[in-house]
Order: sequence, then structure tokens, then C-alpha cells
Amino acid sequence: MKKNITVLFEPEGRKIEVESEISIFEVARMAGVGIRFECGGKGICGKCKVIVLDKKSVSKLTENEKRHLFPEEIESGYRLACQALLKNDTTIMIPEESRILRAKIQVFGLERPVPLKVLVGKFHIKLAKPTLHDVRPDFERILNALRVQTGICELNIDYEVLKFLPEILRRANWDVTITLWNQQKIIAIEEGDTSDRIFGVAIDIGTSKIVGCLVDLKSGKTVSTGFIENPQILYGEDIISRINFAANEKKGLETLQRVVLDGVNHVISYICAQANVDAENVYEVTVVGNTAMHHLFLGVNPKYTAFSPFTPAIKSPVNVKAGDLGVKICKSGNVHVLPVIAGFVGADAVADVLASGIHMQKEISLLLDIGANTEIFVGNSEDILSCSCASGPAFEGAHIRHGMKAVTGAIEKLSINSASDYEVEYKTIGDAAPLGICGSAIIDAVAEMLKCGIINRKGRFNLNVKTPRLRIVDGNPEFVLVWRGESGTGRDIVITQRDLSEVQLAKAAIFAGCSILMKRKNVKVNDIDQLLIAGSFGSYINPENAKLIGLVPDVPVEKVKFVGNTALAGARMALISAEARETADNLSKSIRYLELASDPDFQLEFAMATFLPHKNLDRFPSLKEFFKKLNNEEIHKHH
Amino acid sequence: MKKNITVLFEPEGRKIEVESEISIFEVARMAGVGIRFECGGKGICGKCKVIVLDKKSVSKLTENEKRHLFPEEIESGYRLACQALLKNDTTIMIPEESRILRAKIQVFGLERPVPLKVLVGKFHIKLAKPTLHDVRPDFERILNALRVQTGICELNIDYEVLKFLPEILRRANWDVTITLWNQQKIIAIEEGDTSDRIFGVAIDIGTSKIVGCLVDLKSGKTVSTGFIENPQILYGEDIISRINFAANEKKGLETLQRVVLDGVNHVISYICAQANVDAENVYEVTVVGNTAMHHLFLGVNPKYTAFSPFTPAIKSPVNVKAGDLGVKICKSGNVHVLPVIAGFVGADAVADVLASGIHMQKEISLLLDIGANTEIFVGNSEDILSCSCASGPAFEGAHIRHGMKAVTGAIEKLSINSASDYEVEYKTIGDAAPLGICGSAIIDAVAEMLKCGIINRKGRFNLNVKTPRLRIVDGNPEFVLVWRGESGTGRDIVITQRDLSEVQLAKAAIFAGCSILMKRKNVKVNDIDQLLIAGSFGSYINPENAKLIGLVPDVPVEKVKFVGNTALAGARMALISAEARETADNLSKSIRYLELASDPDFQLEFAMATFLPHKNLDRFPSLKEFFKKLNNEEIHKHH
Repeated sequence: MKKNITVLFEPEGRKIEVESEISIFEVARMAGVGIRFECGGKGICGKCKVIVLDKKSVSKLTENEKRHLFPEEIESGYRLACQALLKNDTTIMIPEESRILRAKIQVFGLERPVPLKVLVGKFHIKLAKPTLHDVRPDFERILNALRVQTGICELNIDYEVLKFLPEILRRANWDVTITLWNQQKIIAIEEGDTSDRIFGVAIDIGTSKIVGCLVDLKSGKTVSTGFIENPQILYGEDIISRINFAANEKKGLETLQRVVLDGVNHVISYICAQANVDAENVYEVTVVGNTAMHHLFLGVNPKYTAFSPFTPAIKSPVNVKAGDLGVKICKSGNVHVLPVIAGFVGADAVADVLASGIHMQKEISLLLDIGANTEIFVGNSEDILSCSCASGPAFEGAHIRHGMKAVTGAIEKLSINSASDYEVEYKTIGDAAPLGICGSAIIDAVAEMLKCGIINRKGRFNLNVKTPRLRIVDGNPEFVLVWRGESGTGRDIVITQRDLSEVQLAKAAIFAGCSILMKRKNVKVNDIDQLLIAGSFGSYINPENAKLIGLVPDVPVEKVKFVGNTALAGARMALISAEARETADNLSKSIRYLELASDPDFQLEFAMATFLPHKNLDRFPSLKEFFKKLNNEEIHKHH
Repeated sequence: MKKNITVLFEPEGRKIEVESEISIFEVARMAGVGIRFECGGKGICGKCKVIVLDKKSVSKLTENEKRHLFPEEIESGYRLACQALLKNDTTIMIPEESRILRAKIQVFGLERPVPLKVLVGKFHIKLAKPTLHDVRPDFERILNALRVQTGICELNIDYEVLKFLPEILRRANWDVTITLWNQQKIIAIEEGDTSDRIFGVAIDIGTSKIVGCLVDLKSGKTVSTGFIENPQILYGEDIISRINFAANEKKGLETLQRVVLDGVNHVISYICAQANVDAENVYEVTVVGNTAMHHLFLGVNPKYTAFSPFTPAIKSPVNVKAGDLGVKICKSGNVHVLPVIAGFVGADAVADVLASGIHMQKEISLLLDIGANTEIFVGNSEDILSCSCASGPAFEGAHIRHGMKAVTGAIEKLSINSASDYEVEYKTIGDAAPLGICGSAIIDAVAEMLKCGIINRKGRFNLNVKTPRLRIVDGNPEFVLVWRGESGTGRDIVITQRDLSEVQLAKAAIFAGCSILMKRKNVKVNDIDQLLIAGSFGSYINPENAKLIGLVPDVPVEKVKFVGNTALAGARMALISAEARETADNLSKSIRYLELASDPDFQLEFAMATFLPHKNLDRFPSLKEFFKKLNNEEIHKHH
């Protein structure tokens, strides 16, 4: 038997009333308290430990909990939030380590202002009751009233809404609010005047994170934001392994779709709880993501996007009823998935361009969205050429010995002082004890080591440098950024030779992509009026350092602009502006796509770009002098 | 474990391969063998007895079977087809009594010819495979091919089809047939060239029967027809009791919708099996029915259509995806429910007008669709006025002592010879031994008794008539139509005083409806150019007799025309013609509706019309002489 119970979350002091037999995890989500979610609430990761003050108020320990909790923890009332079901009123403590880490995630991005023109409209109407002298049917009665108020003559009604039409009108005593989508379909009828409650959600489904924002569609303003790790990570860290899982495992595709939908629903539920908004009052969701995520979200097999000739199932925008897809907003609401360009240039990239506005400018832009795949655009209002390169997750902190995501405790900036025994100055997110280094600091580390001569332009350690920080462990050289005494992990934080190779491969792919694209578009470095960098680093990366390692072409630093999460910004624009939506569609059709894999020059360009900044310094004229001087110093120092 | 088994139905000799663990009933349906279905396959009615030759090839006896089968039947291998599940290859005998009775149901009706313009189109296309030089996505590849072939530029794809797009194209080696609905949405993609397999279904959901026809959409020709009793009958014989069930019982509405959907699916499956058509190749269904059936089919509460002011939820046509509604055709196919006019003038009535074409003629028509509710129309191309009257089920054989539906064994015509001791000559459906009388013969019986002076114009028996056929049982007079020796039931078939009252009330309601409607429309009897009668009687009723009892106004017999099942004919027209569909929509908007309940003259008109043919013989000038003569004869005879 279910009953109503009251749950208090501490230390927030947030109270919520729910029906019993619900998991602590679920209630925490409803209360807007973020608990870690690495395994998607399946009792596998053991990261959601919470303390229940009254042990009798929850269900018995599960096998999963016995595996993850120490006896002394069990004694102290520790439980896994995803496993324990609530039975009675209780108080729950959420320890710091179980909270979603305060990540420095780029939720906001550069966003070109667009006139507010949402596709969802609400109309409060008071209808005359039917009489023997006015026997108009319920639907036609609404149509007439809407015609008077809006001038709209032709309207459909969603079947799910039609089913309950007679009851709701009579229960509301003929005083209702009608929600229209795209001036053509009734998607909700609510009792009384609810015209002030009209919300939308923009979602960016990344390979590693799902980020969303809740937007008040009356004002177009964002009212809350949130994110989680993409729970698909359980089925493969990178895109290709997930595509393989979907293609080869039994029910693999269904599983990955369900899991990403769970994730999206989690974000929606979280951002709604944050703003105290009922998810029923969210009527539209716009979604961007790379092409593989786009397909998996729609339950379409992404297999063929991953193998030559990398063909997506569809590039046009897709509108699906929320209820059909399983997105938990108003059941008849709309999910608008933005269009893609190609197998590796997805809806997130369309959103990047849309938000950056490079398609509206006479000036020539080079736009990079750096991630595990980096999308690159070059062009202007006349024509844009795009490509994608497999840059790997090094700049997201993966495949780097002490790399980490941009969450609390990550080093986000650093410099090395060669004059003072190669001392490392650094700054961490949240000013916490350092746990590792995130993308922006990885670039800094490589650039600084290059500047100090700790590594050479081939990315090899210079063992002539004499400092205890440069050492050889098991035959492999590494450089110590943080000594264990200072670190939050009790271990030294280092950069290894292998880390350097990862960074070199990543940046070489990006640089080669830029070079080929510019070549095919016949754009020289000097022609570039602005270089825009999107993506989620710890903080805006240091443009001098990015250039020094040859991550980006040699354009003056004042032309470099960091634009943040333009993918989400573009999704937000499409949410609040029909015009932006149309523009996105046009962009997906008009942006040309270059397949790097079939470009004859790519391999050579890539190989040359593995040097720091490049094998041929003529490609970096502004740095020529610097490297000449550096080289002389080196010779001077060690001879 | 399921396995493939072969089932042979005798005496048809029809063989079918199926997966085991399926009910005999289900397999019979798939094989196109009609078994009775009164309880909807729930083991309640016990009407689906079949003989299984090898007892071991089916599952164990259920409790329901033990209740319905005699021990000797069980010994002989009798089973209930809906209860027994098939395990192994076997042969099944279906005894005559378990077959759907060969009913003389009016499947065909008058149908105005319309130009064939179906909303479903099939296009066989061969696509170029994607290469690195032609990376168009799957959907856009199809769009381009369709544009070349059809000129259509803007197309959606149903989400369910999109999901499987990449797989089907590759499995089919890029040779597929695309099905478009309304030149705007892709609703199916099939391997190879299937363009010759394109079907639609028209369905008329009556209170007592569900009738359907399968139409080849290439030619517009009907290829098979079928019907079943409306299985909702378990939840109430008449509309009002079903509406009450839907409104007041827990899950009542869901139950009635599910049951009527089961019935519709049964008919579809049956007519497809008859014509050896895969239901997946049915892409559209058009549906008509009275307003209550219309609402129940859509799962909309019909409560408010039944109580003043009798307001439907919607009168506009409704299009719903077959999969969303649960109609078992192509999942993304369309179900088009025709529009209604008012709470008691439904989509079936719109179809009546559509098929009869009275809205296109200068001549004035009076159109009646006689059933438990009789819909009446009067007018021409300028204007049509409609009403509905509760005529009760007497003419469908219900509420009459020995009344029955127009199935095998029902008397469909009769005459009484007063010169030969009131001998009754009759004809039965299928020329079987008489079991009862159906609607057309009920009219004959009353008229003949009136002509012979057995009853008077008040509908009372004239006990002065001396014949053993007129007798008094338990104080109530009755007339014997068939002696038990001749009947197929072993009992006398009679007409009672109570039966006469039922007929009088029914015909009075219809006549009063006609009178009021003509009055309000200012049409005199002489203005009527044609009198059209639709509905399912045993055979076309005798127009002289219909007039004699005052069922219809006094128009010359040559102006009376029987038009059959115009409801299904109209649904069929809407299936094969976009133009007809539009006309139906216009008719539902333009036909005016008169609420008899609020007409001040109705009660008096009704009371006067309970006489045979009418209290005031001035209303039947053509019969005046006849009744004067009859009266004289009577006086002469008994004095």
C-alpha cells in the first residue's frame, strides 16, 4: 500500500511530499537535489551513497548495496540512493562525495540575438455552455473561440487531447487554456487560466554530457540549467564503441535509445525542479547532438554513419510527438531535433554555426567545435565548407594519465617558471586541492614545457633539463606538475611521454582539418577575419598557448574568440525562434561537407602537424622568431 | 517453445501454417473461416464449438470449456475454438452450428460513382548506393528519387518508418517501394516492387453489426466483404446502455473502445484472409458509425451526446495513425473517421447522403436510414434538414417475440390469404425451415393482418375473426404465422399484441420525424420527388405495405427506392476519392439539424401516427378509398 510521506533533504533543508515506495534517488531528483548518476541508477557504480537517519523508514538492503557499502557504513545508515525505497517520513543526508560535482561546464555560449517567435502559444478562453439552441460540438466550440481570438481557421487536435476533451471542458466549467503548436495543432487543454505557464527545453546531447536549459517561452529567458554525464557511457566510452554496441548487441539500439532518453528526462526533471516548474507545462524540446547521438536518441541505427561512406539516415529536421518518443513533458508536446550536415557533422555543429552567426557575415570565419570529434567550418555568408576530424578525447581529459573533466579540483590553468627551478603555478576549479588536469591546462602544460625547453618540437622530453620534476619512471620520462603533498589525491600529478603523444595526435588532426578545409576553400591564414573556438574546456583556453602547440592556425590572438557552448545556444535559439529553426534547416542544406578521409593531402598534413607547432615553421610565421630564439637559448644553455 | 505447425480446416479443406500456441479461433480467422464470436472470444458464449481430430494436438480443457461442453461432446473431441490452443499439426472440423450464419446483410448500397482519387500512393524506386562522392543521407536520397518520379518536393516521414530506414534500404539493396499518404507523408517502405499491393478498408460500425469491405485501391473495386456482430453487445444491447456503461463503469470507456477495435480488427483480418491480402498492405481505413459508435471507437466519452443538449465532442473528420489507435493494418497507415452532424446524426448518416447524392439534385428527396435510431433527411442541392428519432430495434427483429435478425431461417416476406382461412405464405432466408421473422416480414405481417381485418387501425386484434390462427394465450391475443410442425424451432411462430405495439411505436416515431421535418422545411408530401430508404432489412421491404402501416408518408410507390447499406457505400466512396471525403466534410457542416425533442408539435404528431397508417386518413389520401372499402367489408362480414 502506497501512502503519502514527507522527506527532508539535509543539509539543504529541502522538504518534499511524495508517495511511498519510491527510490531516494527519484525523490532527490524531484526535490532538485543532484546525486551522482554514473550508472544510470542501476546499483552498479555505488556513487550515490546517502545517509538515512531512520533505518526503518526505508526498504531492506539489496545485494547491490551489500557489495558497495562497508559494514561500518551500513551501521551508520549509509544506503545507495538508487536502491533504497522510502517507506515512511524520514530525513536524508547527502554527503559531499555523492553530489554531482560542481562542474565548470560551459552551459552558456555565444548566442546571436533573434526575435522571439516561439512555436507554442497559449490562449485562455471562456466558452459558452452548450444549450438546445447552441449545439455546437466541443471541438468546434473551441475552434470558433480561437478564431475570434487568433484569426486561425484551420486547426487539428492531437488525438490524445481529443480523447479527454468532453471531460476536461465540463470539469473546467468551460474555462480553459488551449496550447497550440505551430498555429496548427492543439496539444494541450488545461483547466482555468494557465497562460503564464509556458516553457520549453533546449538539450545538447554530447557523447560525454547531456546539457539542458529550461526556457520561459513568454520571455525567451533561460530560467534554469543542468547537466548529467551521458549514461550511455556504460555501453562504451566513445562514439564508435556505442555504435558497435547498437549495431551488434541484442536490443543494443533499444537499450542505447532508452538510456539516452532516461538521461534527457533526468535533465528535464532536474531543471524543472530547480525552477519549480511542472514538466507538464513544458510543451516543446529542441535537441542537438552529433549525428550518432542524434540517431541513437531517435532510435535509428547509427551504424552506417560510422563506416564509409558515412551516410546518415536523415539530415532534415525531425519533429516527433513527445509521448511517441518517450520524452517526459506534455504528452502531446513536440520534440524538434535539429538537422545534421553529415555523418560526422551533426545537429550540434549546425547549432554552432547558427549561434555564431558566421553565415551572416561578410568576414571570413574559421569555426572549431573541439571535442572527441572536432567539427570545423570555414566561410562566410556566401558559402561555408565543413569537415570533421577524429581528435580524440585528450582535450576532455581522457586518455591522459592524470587528465580529468572540468569538475571541482581540476587544474584549469598553469604556467611553468623556468627561472625558478621549473616551479608550476596553477589554478583549480573551485580552488580545491588539485585532483588532475582538464583540457585547458593540458594545452598550457604542453605549451609551457615547450617554452621552457622541457620538451622539443617533436614532443619528446629533453632529458638534459635538470630538475627533480623531470624524472624517469619504469624507463619512461614524465614531468611532475604537482607534488603529492599538495595534491588532493595523495599522488604526484604528472604529464607523461604518452600524454604528450595523445595531445600531439589530437592537435594534429584538428590542425590538418583546418589546413585541408582552408586549402579546398582557397582561404589563406591571412584571409581569416576571426577564429571562433567552441567546446567545453575548463575555462577559455589560452590562445597564445593553443597557437604555440599548433592546435590552431597562425592567426593574430586578437582574432581568436571563445564562444562557449554554442551547440546548446543554437538549440535554445531554435526553441525560441521559428526563424532560427528555418535558418538551421537552410544551413544543413547549404553548408558543404568535405570528407577528410578521401582527401589525398590529409595524411601528409596530419603527419607534419604532429610537430609542435608544425614541421614547417613557415606555417607559423608569427612564432618563427620565438622558436629561433628558443633554439639559441637551448644551445646556449646546454653547451 | 513455439514451433511451426500445419492446420487443416474441414470441410473446406483449407490449410494454413502457423506458429503453435495460438487459439483455434485465431487460426480460423487467419484462414478466412468464419466462426461465431458472440462473446468476443472470451469463452463465455460457448458458441464456437469445433471438433479436433487428434485430441493430443491441443491444450488441456479449460474451466470455461468444461462448463459449456457435455461429457459426450468432450469424448468426441469437441472444443471451444477460442479456448483451445494448438500444439501440433491437426485437422479441425467446424460444425454448421458454430459457423457465422449466412446473413442476408446489406453490404452493398447505392453508390454514386466518383472519380478514383485515393489518398495512398505507391512508388517503386531504385536508388543509387551511397559512395564517398554521393553521401546524400537515406531520407534525402528517397526524397530526390520521389521528386523526379512524382514532382512532390515537401515530404515527411512517419517516425516509425524513419526508425528502420537504414536497415530496410540496405536489406532491399536500395530497391524499394514507398507508400505515401496524402502526398505528404511516407507511411511505409517495403523491399522490392510491391506497387501492385495497395489496399484500403471501409468500415461501418453499427450498434448491432460491424460491416467492412476490402478495396483494391488501384482499381477502386471491392475485393471482399465481411461482418460480425458488434461485440460491444455484451456490454449493453442498445446505444444508451453502452453509453451508460462507458460513463459509469470503471474502465468502461476503455473496455468499449477495446472491444469495438477488436471487432473492427476481426473484420479486417477476415476480409483480408478472404482475398488472400496481407493486412500490412492495407494503408488506409475509412470509418462511419453513429455518433456514439464514432466516439467509442475513438475512445472519447459519448456521455454528453446522449443527454440534452446532445453535444458531440467533435464533428470534423478525424485522422489518426492506425498504430496509435490500435487498428491492425500498416502501423503508420491512416484511419479516417468521417465527420458527424449531431449527437444522433452520425458519420453513417453523412455517408448515407454522400452515397445517395441527394445533395447534388434539384429534385427534393426524403431519405430515411431505418435502424434503432432512424436518421431522416429532407432537401436537395440547395439545403438539407436532418433529424433523428428513437425508433427502437423492432425492425431489426429485437423486442418482437419471434423477431430475429436477417440470418438464415428468418422469414423475410409473407402474405396472408383471407380467402383461404388466413393461410400464411412465406419465404425464408436460405429457404431453411423458419426460425422467426425479420424486419421486412414484420412489416408484411402487420400490413397483411390489417388488410385481412385481423387487426384494426388502432393495432388491436379483431377477435371476431374466426380462425384457429387467432387465439388467446394467458389472456393475450396472438396470431400464428407458422405452426410448430413447419417451424425450425418446434414452436409456433406468432405475432403478439405486444409485438404490434412495438411496431406501432417504432413506425410512429419515424413517421412523426418525417412529418415534423417536412413541416419545418415547408415541404408537402406532393413536393417529394423521391423517397429513399436505407438500412438492413431482410430484403427490400414491400413499399405498399410500408405505406399501409404508415411507416412512410403517402408518396406514390414508384417514387420509393431502396438504397441498401449507403453508410458503408459512403465510407467506401471516401476511401477511394479525396473529393468524396471533402464533400462529406462539407455535408457535415452544411446539413442543418433539427432537435425533435425540443419541437412543440412532436408529441401530438407521434400520438396520431401510432394509428395504422395514421389517425387522420387525410394524411394518406391514396389509401382513403382502400380503408373505406375495407371498413365496409368488415361491417358487411360481421353483421
